[in-house]
Amino acid sequence: MKNMTWYEFDARKDKDLVILPVGSVEQHGPHLPLFTDTIISEKFSNLLANKVNGIVMPAINYGYKSQPASGGGPLFPGTIDLNGATLISLVKDIIEELIRDGVKKIAIVNSHFENQAFLLEAIDLVSRNMPEGTKIVMMSWWDLITQDTIDKVFDEVEFPGWALEHAAITETSLILKFAPETVHMDRLIDEKIEEVPSYQVYPIPKDLVPKSGLLSIGRTSSKEKGELIIQEALEGMVNIVRKEFIF
Amino acid sequence: MKNMTWYEFDARKDKDLVILPVGSVEQHGPHLPLFTDTIISEKFSNLLANKVNGIVMPAINYGYKSQPASGGGPLFPGTIDLNGATLISLVKDIIEELIRDGVKKIAIVNSHFENQAFLLEAIDLVSRNMPEGTKIVMMSWWDLITQDTIDKVFDEVEFPGWALEHAAITETSLILKFAPETVHMDRLIDEKIEEVPSYQVYPIPKDLVPKSGLLSIGRTSSKEKGELIIQEALEGMVNIVRKEFIF
Amino acid sequence: MKNMTWYEFDARKDKDLVILPVGSVEQHGPHLPLFTDTIISEKFSNLLANKVNGIVMPAINYGYKSQPASGGGPLFPGTIDLNGATLISLVKDIIEELIRDGVKKIAIVNSHFENQAFLLEAIDLVSRNMPEGTKIVMMSWWDLITQDTIDKVFDEVEFPGWALEHAAITETSLILKFAPETVHMDRLIDEKIEEVPSYQVYPIPKDLVPKSGLLSIGRTSSKEKGELIIQEALEGMVNIVRKEFIF
Amino acid sequence: MKNMTWYEFDARKDKDLVILPVGSVEQHGPHLPLFTDTIISEKFSNLLANKVNGIVMPAINYGYKSQPASGGGPLFPGTIDLNGATLISLVKDIIEELIRDGVKKIAIVNSHFENQAFLLEAIDLVSRNMPEGTKIVMMSWWDLITQDTIDKVFDEVEFPGWALEHAAITETSLILKFAPETVHMDRLIDEKIEEVPSYQVYPIPKDLVPKSGLLSIGRTSSKEKGELIIQEALEGMVNIVRKEFIF
Amino acid sequence: MKNMTWYEFDARKDKDLVILPVGSVEQHGPHLPLFTDTIISEKFSNLLANKVNGIVMPAINYGYKSQPASGGGPLFPGTIDLNGATLISLVKDIIEELIRDGVKKIAIVNSHFENQAFLLEAIDLVSRNMPEGTKIVMMSWWDLITQDTIDKVFDEVEFPGWALEHAAITETSLILKFAPETVHMDRLIDEKIEEVPSYQVYPIPKDLVPKSGLLSIGRTSSKEKGELIIQEALEGMVNIVRKEFIF
Amino acid sequence: MKNMTWYEFDARKDKDLVILPVGSVEQHGPHLPLFTDTIISEKFSNLLANKVNGIVMPAINYGYKSQPASGGGPLFPGTIDLNGATLISLVKDIIEELIRDGVKKIAIVNSHFENQAFLLEAIDLVSRNMPEGTKIVMMSWWDLITQDTIDKVFDEVEFPGWALEHAAITETSLILKFAPETVHMDRLIDEKIEEVPSYQVYPIPKDLVPKSGLLSIGRTSSKEKGELIIQEALEGMVNIVRKEFIF
Repeated sequence: MKNMTWYEFDARKDKDLVILPVGSVEQHGPHLPLFTDTIISEKFSNLLANKVNGIVMPAINYGYKSQPASGGGPLFPGTIDLNGATLISLVKDIIEELIRDGVKKIAIVNSHFENQAFLLEAIDLVSRNMPEGTKIVMMSWWDLITQDTIDKVFDEVEFPGWALEHAAITETSLILKFAPETVHMDRLIDEKIEEVPSYQVYPIPKDLVPKSGLLSIGRTSSKEKGELIIQEALEGMVNIVRKEFIF
Repeated sequence: MKNMTWYEFDARKDKDLVILPVGSVEQHGPHLPLFTDTIISEKFSNLLANKVNGIVMPAINYGYKSQPASGGGPLFPGTIDLNGATLISLVKDIIEELIRDGVKKIAIVNSHFENQAFLLEAIDLVSRNMPEGTKIVMMSWWDLITQDTIDKVFDEVEFPGWALEHAAITETSLILKFAPETVHMDRLIDEKIEEVPSYQVYPIPKDLVPKSGLLSIGRTSSKEKGELIIQEALEGMVNIVRKEFIF
Repeated sequence: MKNMTWYEFDARKDKDLVILPVGSVEQHGPHLPLFTDTIISEKFSNLLANKVNGIVMPAINYGYKSQPASGGGPLFPGTIDLNGATLISLVKDIIEELIRDGVKKIAIVNSHFENQAFLLEAIDLVSRNMPEGTKIVMMSWWDLITQDTIDKVFDEVEFPGWALEHAAITETSLILKFAPETVHMDRLIDEKIEEVPSYQVYPIPKDLVPKSGLLSIGRTSSKEKGELIIQEALEGMVNIVRKEFIF
Repeated sequence: MKNMTWYEFDARKDKDLVILPVGSVEQHGPHLPLFTDTIISEKFSNLLANKVNGIVMPAINYGYKSQPASGGGPLFPGTIDLNGATLISLVKDIIEELIRDGVKKIAIVNSHFENQAFLLEAIDLVSRNMPEGTKIVMMSWWDLITQDTIDKVFDEVEFPGWALEHAAITETSLILKFAPETVHMDRLIDEKIEEVPSYQVYPIPKDLVPKSGLLSIGRTSSKEKGELIIQEALEGMVNIVRKEFIF
Repeated sequence: MKNMTWYEFDARKDKDLVILPVGSVEQHGPHLPLFTDTIISEKFSNLLANKVNGIVMPAINYGYKSQPASGGGPLFPGTIDLNGATLISLVKDIIEELIRDGVKKIAIVNSHFENQAFLLEAIDLVSRNMPEGTKIVMMSWWDLITQDTIDKVFDEVEFPGWALEHAAITETSLILKFAPETVHMDRLIDEKIEEVPSYQVYPIPKDLVPKSGLLSIGRTSSKEKGELIIQEALEGMVNIVRKEFIF
Repeated sequence: MKNMTWYEFDARKDKDLVILPVGSVEQHGPHLPLFTDTIISEKFSNLLANKVNGIVMPAINYGYKSQPASGGGPLFPGTIDLNGATLISLVKDIIEELIRDGVKKIAIVNSHFENQAFLLEAIDLVSRNMPEGTKIVMMSWWDLITQDTIDKVFDEVEFPGWALEHAAITETSLILKFAPETVHMDRLIDEKIEEVPSYQVYPIPKDLVPKSGLLSIGRTSSKEKGELIIQEALEGMVNIVRKEFIF
């Protein structure tokens, strides 16, 4: 959509899927860029658009507040967090504008764990006054990975669960594939969160997560594993879109 | 706190832990009451208060919007959902009032899966202007259950994950212990969600979850299993409180 | 409603009156519990439900800011005040959910003087988009007491007006009937506000009301007077409901 | 303040009382202007300013929603109602600006019954971060009238209470004195609300109040009674200002 | 409208143009009153109403935040600024009430440069749910002045652009005509902003504008120039109203 | 910043200028991309960063509502408009996060005409609680172009003023330089707004602007003119940054 003229958008708006990538600006350890999440959702959105003839919107570059046990938390410099109400309004406004323009098929591609509840709140609020025939789908790539692939990706290191897979094997592998020039594998160290907290406490303690911001072991990341994840997640997204929007 | 006079509250406010139970009004299948979540958080709060000499506040009776794959979703009659912004303001106002009164130790006991992100947003907003020495802890009982106990509770039925454990074995067992007079075991049927969706779609399809609102098999629930869960979660809560507030 | 399953609620939702009790957590002198208001509206709601086959919702446990000359004001520890905007949103969300569920007959039973303007604002906002045939009624018990009963209840002490009747004869008598185990008549003292202010001033002066929080003389409270008030207010509520909802 | 230059305001801002009149645009029967309330608060503010060397700000011309039993309700054409949240923000912004300018003594002169709760909410929110030494007073003229004067004003007609004294003897008498050219005594009729409702119902029934918008009998209004009320209310305001701001 | 009864408003509401003047309370140098803007929009509204048989509403007396390069900025005592969200809500509420009353033709007459974006936002929000046949027009007097008149008014002094024409020749001339008793020509000095900033910086520097608050030279202001501007702007307003509302 | 790790950001955050580009998604005629504005502010931000060793944040990709006479208005498909309140919150949250991270020097580079008032509102709200020593600058490239350059750029076509210079010579020339692959010069036609409205009207008439969305003649655009504008605007930005942040 970035490079389309409004004539081009106008010609496709009521037929084609419009895809909104949502990311974040968040610490991703010593070796991955702050923009890791947005890179991932933009790349997935582009791949998906190629498969289903979709239109990719400019990304929502900023996301909801990083939590210690899924992103390192708000104390890391460079982690730029939106308030919940702001993210809700932002997504709501954008989707409502699409709908006013006559768009019927909308997919949100999310890559930031903490965004989920607030994206759904925005969609829910929009959906209460949505014209018949409009449909909105929200997908996060990790929800589309099978146990089989998890087993392959976590061949040496144990799978710590998706929340803790922050700046670790899956994200590092994805960025090695999507934007290798931004990865500093030489700076990656073997740190992880010592004890995953079973509750939340405020003010957030500074020593809850390692100084590096790494929550899980990132060693054994590779472009091939990135490729594997991308293939499966993309196939999942294509299937969802085909099923829901009957292409 | 309900039955305390203000003199009694005044005498304890800056020393003792103040506990805020948060629940919901949400469908819990054909056999459990709409107030299941709030019953659970109130009961846990009372048990915790007994152990650590805490003060239990009146519960927040209404919670955030039920989601299909963790509570059946908003379409069930009797499920009364708050908007995200409302729950945030409500929790924020109450905690700020406690802090203005001089309370230093606050614990939120949550029992509704969908509340989590919005409770944390409220606490985060409060914590930005919190006087030094004030601490807020949030606990959800399921985060305190070990794999060992899960194995015991799910002796016949497979553990479907916490999100899907709605109106199923753990909650039924808890209510069998906490409020047995409200349970109708004879109405319980063996239904569960057929295919757990790996994405969200709006408008929410009516056939995503079984008509009964049950997401997982509730058979094999028992008062004994309830007791087991209560013991472990309560012990977890007491440990957290002891650790964070140095009792 | 607390103990109903969603099946039970579903079967009655479009026929029966749904009653929402609204209270507060507020100082009520040295002898009454902080939860006085909510106890009163819950009890009245239950009595009303029995008479008109209504459904009682879980209460809104927290209310609007206590004012010095009607509740002692915000400075008393244990008085937990919501901002106006929060109470408006909370009530609005809950009523809108009821309406979405198909409920047509809604009654709000209020017992906290300061709630009134904000409850009406919430109802007004909802009513602008309400489906035809839906009706909402708001009642406060004191509005239903006749001069005749006032004369009987204030046989020795002069009636100070409803705003000042805080933690005094009527509320004490009501709690003596509704929740006698929470009343400490031995702690009641003969204090009252010396000079009722004819204006408001901020910051609120600390000596505007007696230290005890009592605004009027509570002596001569009795279970019998409570009974008298309950009978009359209940009859008034039943008449209103019969008239407005044509039972 | 309207006609002052900023130099003149600057010279007096930290010494003198700043007075903010708040009114409404609301039906006042067939004989009084829509601007009745604002005329009254502006005139009182000017009189008060003369006595205490105060500065009168431009009025807040619009007020909170008219209620049936105190202003006829929102259905009358020409009654222009603000939402509660809007009035709160408006008053809050204005007072905060005064305080930022260095003003220490602020009086709000209100003349619209329904404004009260929302004005107090605004003042309360401001007062939480107010610099030491700043004081805000809110006065409504009817709160300053003694029983003695009520007896004199209601010599033929019974006093219906302040809420119902809308467009009736007191307001008509005030406008006969304050802005006689806007009164049409020949159009005044002897109508009043038949049965004062003891509860609120929405949607607001159209026949709750007389078609004319009159709630109480206005006959026997006179410039002399207006004069009497003005003298007493003004004296009350001067006394309050003297007491609170130590002039 | 101020002096109309509701009967009179009711009789004209769906036929006649309703005019809402919007102004500000803002420093206007050493010689003009703080209420300059509101005086101007009220006077223009009255003149326009006379020409097209319109109804003038009570003004919105307070406006959006003064900016250094168009009004001197927020640091001047006596400049009372509303937050953007407040002005939006205020205008939105008022227009929505008019529309609910059945008004079809609405004109906003603005005289405060900084109000423009926020007035348009309010109108835009209202217009999304506006009944067919309703129309809202917004006019600022300076947009209606031709180059020819600018040349005449700026016969000696160079025209600095409308933003900088604050408390200078045009506004002084207008007030000399509209409210001569409030102008102190003897206090007018020949000061102007030295260097018009081509960007904005916060915190706003104190020396950005002259101490007097004057942005441009006001010398050569005259009642005759005021008359000239009034004639042309008024004619422009009448033409707009005639064209848009087909009188 | 996109490709920086948090370690790299941390090392520079309190010394270096942080630059936030703000753009829009808005129709730019038949020949320019919807992302024109954001492309321009991102490119300017990068150029500025190179000169002053600044850090460029991910852009705010969406902006405030397009107005007919400065962007064609909201009716064009592909123009995605945020509400004013949303843009204010978004910018406020992001700047506050920077400040919390310890950033002291912030520059906002804007390229969308309609954003201005709302960006300033956000900055103003932040600046009220900003730590001493923090400074925020907002720049729009057109404010930095001298009359001399305007004369050179508008050698054949008359300069229509900045508001109307939408998708016309300056923006086309800029994109020819910044992202030539997105320009379709062959589709450019010679259309412009016939009569620039001197007022606003809602609902916005469909024939106010040409069907193409072009407001001014774009002919004679060239890469060289783009280069000229870039040089001058960039020099202006560098001078502002040098002056305000004393590099």
